[in-house]
Amino acid sequence: MTAVDFIDLASDTKTRPTAAMRAAMAAADVGDERAHEDPSVNRLLARCAALLGKEAAVFLPSGTMANEIALAVHCRPGDAVLCDATSHLIGFEGGGPAALAGVMIEPIGGRRGIFDAQALRAAIRADAPYAPRQRLVVVEQTSNLGGGAVWPRATLDDVAAVAHAAGLATHMDGARLLNACVASGVAAADHARGYDSVWIDFSKGLGAPGGAVLAGSRAFCDEAFRIKLRWGGAMRQSGIIAAACEYALDHHVERLAEDHAHARRFAESVAGVPGIAIAPGDVETNLVYFDVDAVAGGAAAFVAALQARGVRMVAMGPARVRAVTHLDVDAGAIERAGALVRAFCEEKRQNTL
Amino acid sequence: MTAVDFIDLASDTKTRPTAAMRAAMAAADVGDERAHEDPSVNRLLARCAALLGKEAAVFLPSGTMANEIALAVHCRPGDAVLCDATSHLIGFEGGGPAALAGVMIEPIGGRRGIFDAQALRAAIRADAPYAPRQRLVVVEQTSNLGGGAVWPRATLDDVAAVAHAAGLATHMDGARLLNACVASGVAAADHARGYDSVWIDFSKGLGAPGGAVLAGSRAFCDEAFRIKLRWGGAMRQSGIIAAACEYALDHHVERLAEDHAHARRFAESVAGVPGIAIAPGDVETNLVYFDVDAVAGGAAAFVAALQARGVRMVAMGPARVRAVTHLDVDAGAIERAGALVRAFCEEKRQNTL
Amino acid sequence: MTAVDFIDLASDTKTRPTAAMRAAMAAADVGDERAHEDPSVNRLLARCAALLGKEAAVFLPSGTMANEIALAVHCRPGDAVLCDATSHLIGFEGGGPAALAGVMIEPIGGRRGIFDAQALRAAIRADAPYAPRQRLVVVEQTSNLGGGAVWPRATLDDVAAVAHAAGLATHMDGARLLNACVASGVAAADHARGYDSVWIDFSKGLGAPGGAVLAGSRAFCDEAFRIKLRWGGAMRQSGIIAAACEYALDHHVERLAEDHAHARRFAESVAGVPGIAIAPGDVETNLVYFDVDAVAGGAAAFVAALQARGVRMVAMGPARVRAVTHLDVDAGAIERAGALVRAFCEEKRQNTL
Amino acid sequence: MTAVDFIDLASDTKTRPTAAMRAAMAAADVGDERAHEDPSVNRLLARCAALLGKEAAVFLPSGTMANEIALAVHCRPGDAVLCDATSHLIGFEGGGPAALAGVMIEPIGGRRGIFDAQALRAAIRADAPYAPRQRLVVVEQTSNLGGGAVWPRATLDDVAAVAHAAGLATHMDGARLLNACVASGVAAADHARGYDSVWIDFSKGLGAPGGAVLAGSRAFCDEAFRIKLRWGGAMRQSGIIAAACEYALDHHVERLAEDHAHARRFAESVAGVPGIAIAPGDVETNLVYFDVDAVAGGAAAFVAALQARGVRMVAMGPARVRAVTHLDVDAGAIERAGALVRAFCEEKRQNTL
Repeated sequence: MTAVDFIDLASDTKTRPTAAMRAAMAAADVGDERAHEDPSVNRLLARCAALLGKEAAVFLPSGTMANEIALAVHCRPGDAVLCDATSHLIGFEGGGPAALAGVMIEPIGGRRGIFDAQALRAAIRADAPYAPRQRLVVVEQTSNLGGGAVWPRATLDDVAAVAHAAGLATHMDGARLLNACVASGVAAADHARGYDSVWIDFSKGLGAPGGAVLAGSRAFCDEAFRIKLRWGGAMRQSGIIAAACEYALDHHVERLAEDHAHARRFAESVAGVPGIAIAPGDVETNLVYFDVDAVAGGAAAFVAALQARGVRMVAMGPARVRAVTHLDVDAGAIERAGALVRAFCEEKRQNTL
Repeated sequence: MTAVDFIDLASDTKTRPTAAMRAAMAAADVGDERAHEDPSVNRLLARCAALLGKEAAVFLPSGTMANEIALAVHCRPGDAVLCDATSHLIGFEGGGPAALAGVMIEPIGGRRGIFDAQALRAAIRADAPYAPRQRLVVVEQTSNLGGGAVWPRATLDDVAAVAHAAGLATHMDGARLLNACVASGVAAADHARGYDSVWIDFSKGLGAPGGAVLAGSRAFCDEAFRIKLRWGGAMRQSGIIAAACEYALDHHVERLAEDHAHARRFAESVAGVPGIAIAPGDVETNLVYFDVDAVAGGAAAFVAALQARGVRMVAMGPARVRAVTHLDVDAGAIERAGALVRAFCEEKRQNTL
Repeated sequence: MTAVDFIDLASDTKTRPTAAMRAAMAAADVGDERAHEDPSVNRLLARCAALLGKEAAVFLPSGTMANEIALAVHCRPGDAVLCDATSHLIGFEGGGPAALAGVMIEPIGGRRGIFDAQALRAAIRADAPYAPRQRLVVVEQTSNLGGGAVWPRATLDDVAAVAHAAGLATHMDGARLLNACVASGVAAADHARGYDSVWIDFSKGLGAPGGAVLAGSRAFCDEAFRIKLRWGGAMRQSGIIAAACEYALDHHVERLAEDHAHARRFAESVAGVPGIAIAPGDVETNLVYFDVDAVAGGAAAFVAALQARGVRMVAMGPARVRAVTHLDVDAGAIERAGALVRAFCEEKRQNTL
Repeated sequence: MTAVDFIDLASDTKTRPTAAMRAAMAAADVGDERAHEDPSVNRLLARCAALLGKEAAVFLPSGTMANEIALAVHCRPGDAVLCDATSHLIGFEGGGPAALAGVMIEPIGGRRGIFDAQALRAAIRADAPYAPRQRLVVVEQTSNLGGGAVWPRATLDDVAAVAHAAGLATHMDGARLLNACVASGVAAADHARGYDSVWIDFSKGLGAPGGAVLAGSRAFCDEAFRIKLRWGGAMRQSGIIAAACEYALDHHVERLAEDHAHARRFAESVAGVPGIAIAPGDVETNLVYFDVDAVAGGAAAFVAALQARGVRMVAMGPARVRAVTHLDVDAGAIERAGALVRAFCEEKRQNTL
C-alpha cells in the first residue's frame, strides 16, 4: 500500500479502500454470486433495494455497466433515449448506448446538466414510423459535467411525470446520488421514486474498490441479471467486493458532507485568482469545475503544471478543469492544493507582466 | 394511373414515373443483379461512378440504405459520427445509425444544416479509451432540414481536409446532390471529391420510383455490396428500376432548375402574407421551409386546412412547414398553391380581427 | 432484352419478366409506398394477407429482408432461433441473424431440411439465465438445401403446436411456399396456419424481378414496416414491382407444376449416368440436387465443364450440384440439358478407362 | 464465513478464497485500474502475458467477458466463428456472440469437444458475398462439455496452422488451460503459441473470487481494453481481486493435480454402479461427466436426490450429470461422495426389483 505523493483531485474514483474496509472484505461471507448464493451480495442487494425504494436489485462491477444494461433492458434497437446533452453515457461510456443497446441519443440542452419538465415536453415528438422510437428518459444525479449540480426533487418528479404520461420509461444514473442525498437532505428513495430504474456507485466517494447496484422492478432486475451474465459482468465470490460496498454504506455516506465542504473551500480558495474563472456558489457537492484562461496556459498545460507541483486535476476541455474531493483528501490537502494553484497562477501572471 | 386531385408539395419523393420512363423500364435489358449479371444495373453503376468521380458503385433500393450501409462500412460499433445536428440520418432513418452500425452521433451545430471546417475542428477530440472513437464525418448535400441549402464547394473541401487530417473518413449524403449541382453549376464529382463515399437518390426530384447509387472505392463498394445482401437490399432483375434511373439521368437532371425556380416563386408568393414567416432568399433549391404563427393555426392545423383546400405540405415542427417542388408540379400549380395559401391566411386574419 | 445463350438451371431467381409482366408494370397505378399510398402495393398486400391467412402484410424488396426482419421483430438480442441445420438463413443471408437481430442459431438436424415435433421437443431447453433465450422456431417451405422437399402439413402443424406450447413464436420462410402448395395441393394459408409470420418470394419461380411479402398480425406488420424503413427497404413508387408480383399471382402459380415435372424429368434423365448419384424420387418440386463423383471431376469442375457446353448449374459443396427449373426453361431445354450432362459424363468415363 | 454443509461438486467456480488468499487481498497495493494505475493489476498482467507467451494482457471480471470481448475484437458483425459444437460460448454465454459481436457460429462436430485440422479444413469455405465471412477459429482448453478433455499440443498447432493459412484468426478459451497444463506437462505458452488471443480464468480451480486475464498482441489488448470500458468491465481498485489471482498463480496451480486425481478417483468409485454409465479413462482433468439411466431417475431427479443426501452435482441434459473437483473438496469428501452415489443407485435398483 504505497503512498501517493501528490494530492489527487482527479476523481473520487481514486479513493482506496481503508484498512477497516479491507478487513471487512477479508472477513466477508461469500458464495457463488452467479447462482445467487453469495450472502454478502444478497444482503447488499436487499439493503440497496430498500434504500432506493425499488423491488429488487442487481450487483454489477461498475456504474458504466449499470447504465448500459438499463438502456438494454428498457429499449430495443432503434429506440431513442432522451437525456441532457452533458450526460455521462454520451461521451464517457465508449459509445455503449449505440454499440450495446442500439439506441440513439436525443440530447436536451439543460442548465448545468439539469433539464426541466418543459424542456422534456418540447423534446417529445409524436411517433412516426421513420423516426427513432422515443422510449426512455435518463437523468444523472448529480450531474457530473454539470459541475455536481443536484437535481431538485420537484424537477425529478415533474420530469418523471411528463415521461410516464408520454409512455416513456425513466432511468436515473445515480453515480453520485448519495452525494445529492447528503447535500439536499432528501432520501435516495425520494429522489428515485419517479424512476423505473436507478443505480448507485460504490467506487466513487464511497470508497469501495468497485461495484455498483442497479435497482428496479423484479422483472427489470431479472432481465438485467441476464444481460449481466451475457456481458460477463458476473464474478463468482463477489461478496468480497460487496462487503466493501456494505462497509461504505455503513461508514462513508454521511461523511460525503466533508467532501462537499472541501470542494466548496477549494473553489473559494481559487476564486478571484488571476486566470481562473469559477463560481464557488455553483459547487453543491464534491465536483469543482473551473476555466483556465490563456495566460494560465489553458486546461492541458495548467493540469500538467499543477501535477508537477503536486496536485492532480483533469482537463475536461480546452479551458475547463475538474477537481474532485473525496475520502482520501483531507482539509489540509485542500488548503495546500488551493495554495499551489494560487501560487502557480500568480507566477504565470508575473511572467506575463 | 389515377390522377392526384391535389397539388402535392409534400415531398419530391411523390413524383411518379412518366410514360417515357415507364417505357424505358418496360424495355429494360435485365439479369440477376445479385450476381452482377444485370446489364442495366451495371451500366447505371459505371455511369454513376464516373459522375461522382469514384472507383465503383453499388445499386440500392433507397437512400436510407445508402446512408446506413456507408456508416456500417466506415465504422465499427461504438464509433462516433460527426454531422450537422439537423442531419437526415439522425431523425429520419429509424435509429439505424445506432441499431445497424452501432454508432453514436456527435451533432455539430451548423447554420442551415451546414457547418464549416472550424466547427468541425472544434468538435474533434483527442482520442480517449472511454470515449466513442470518432471515425466519420457526414455532410448532407443539399441539407434537407437546412431548407435545401447548398454546401459551397470550398466548405466541402475544407471540411473534408480537416476530417482526413484527423484520420476521419468522410461521407456525403447526396439525396439531393444533383439539385446542388444544378443550383451551383459545380459538377457532382467536384462536390464529392473530398468524400470517401457519396450517394445520389433517384426517387426524389429525378422522378424514378426508387433506387439510389452509393459510390466509393472498390474495397468500400465490395463491402457495401456484402452488407446490402445481408440486409436484403438486393432484388434480382433490378434493371427494371435501373432503367428508370438511367432515364432520369438522361432527362430529369437539367430540369431540376425549373423546380428551383418554382420553389423560389412559391416562397415569394407567400412572403409577406400575414401569419407566415419566410425568407425567399434562402430558397436555393427545391425545398421551401416557412413558419406559421398561432393566428394561422400552427403547422399541423395549417397543413390540414391547406390539404382540405387542395395543397399538400408537411408539418416539420410545431410551427414549421415544408413545401417541396418537383417533376409533377408545374408553374400553374405553383401559382394556385400560392394563391390558396394566401387566401387561407387572409381568412384567418379576418376571422381574428 | 438480350438472349441468354445457355440453359440456365442455376436458380429460379434467374427468371426474367415476360412481356406481359412488363406491360403490367408499365401500366401500374402507383403512389408513395412509404406513406402507404401506393394502390398497387396496397392491393398486393391485401391479396397476400388473404392468401396466407394473416391479418396484414408488408412489401419488401427481397426474401432475405423478410427473413431478417421477422427475426428482428420476434426476437431480442441474445435470443435463440431453432431451425433446421440446412436453413437458408444460416449460410446464405450474410450472417444477418447475428448482425441484425443479434440472435443465436440452434440448429436441429432434420432429414432433407425437415424436422419433426419430436426433434423440436428434444431441442427445447428449460430456460436458464446464462443460456440464450429460446424464442422462435423457423421452418423453410420448401427446403432449399433439403432438395426442395415439402414439409407435410401435419408436420408443420405439429411443430407449430410444440413451439407455441413452449412459448416460442413460429416463422415460415416461404421462399418457395407456392411450389409446396402446387406440389401438395394444400393451400398456402393451411401450410402457414400455425405460423405467426410467413413470407413468399416473387423473384423465384413466380418470375417477378424482385419483391417479397411478409405477413402476420397487424402488430407484427407494423413493427416489420418500421424496421423496413430503418433498413432502407422502402422504395417509393413500389407499385411498379408490385404490379409484376400481382401479375405473377394471376399467371405464374399454377404453372409451377410444369417446373416440377421438368425437374423430375431432368433428374430421371441423369439418373444412372456414370459419375452421378441422384434419387429422382426425392425431387418433389423444382430443385434437383445430385452428387458428382471424382471421375466426373467433382462439383466445381463438373459445373464449369457443363457451363462451357451450355448448361449452367451451381456447385453447392465439393460433390454436390444443384439444378433448378423455372419459367425460362422449357421441356426442350430440359431434354437438351439432360443430354449434355449424359454426354459429358460418358466422355469422362471413356477418358478414364 | 459459514460452512457449506454439503460436498459441492457442482462446479470449480464454487471455490472460496482461502484465509491466505484473503490476507493477500487485504494487503494488496492498489490504484485506479481504469487508468492503468493499479500496481497489483499491472504486475498480474505482466506475469500472465509472460505465462501465455503474449505481448500484452487485459484484466477482466470474468471469463465470459474474455471470450465475448475476443470475438468483438477479432470480428465484425456478420462474420462467422468456427468452433466445436460443444463450445461454452454457444450455450453458456447468454447469446453474447450474436448479441455483442454480431457473429454467427459455425459448429464443428469434434470428439469430446476437440476437432482436428482435417475437420477444420472441411469446415472452411470459399468466401462468397452472401455467406457469413469466416473470421475466427476458437478452441476451448480443456473442453468443458467434452468432459475436461485436453487438446493435444500437436492438434492445437495443426488447427492454428490451418486457420492462419486460410486467413482466419485464432482464439483459445482457456477457462481451464492451467488444468490442461498440469495434466499434460506442456507449458501454457506452448499450448497457446498458435493462438492470437487466449485467456485464463482465476475463479475456477485456481480459487480466486473472480477475475480473468485475456492476452494477445498489444494492438489486440488496446482494443480489448477499450471494449472492456464500454461494457462496464472495469472496476477501480481491481488490485484487490488481482492480488487473489496472483496468490492463486503462486499457490494453486500445481495442486490442480490433486483435483485431477480426485476426479479420476470419483469416476472410478461410481463406475460399474447400476444405473450409471461412465468411462473413468476419459477423466483427464477435474471434470467428470456420466450418464444416469431411467432406473436411477434421469439426471434431474438423480441430482435432486443426491443433493438431499449431501452431494451437489449438476444435470447437463436429460441423462447427463457433471461433477467437478476443486480446491474445496478433499480426498475424504470424494470418498464420501462416491459412497453416497453408490448407496443411492443401489437403493434405486433394489426398489425396482
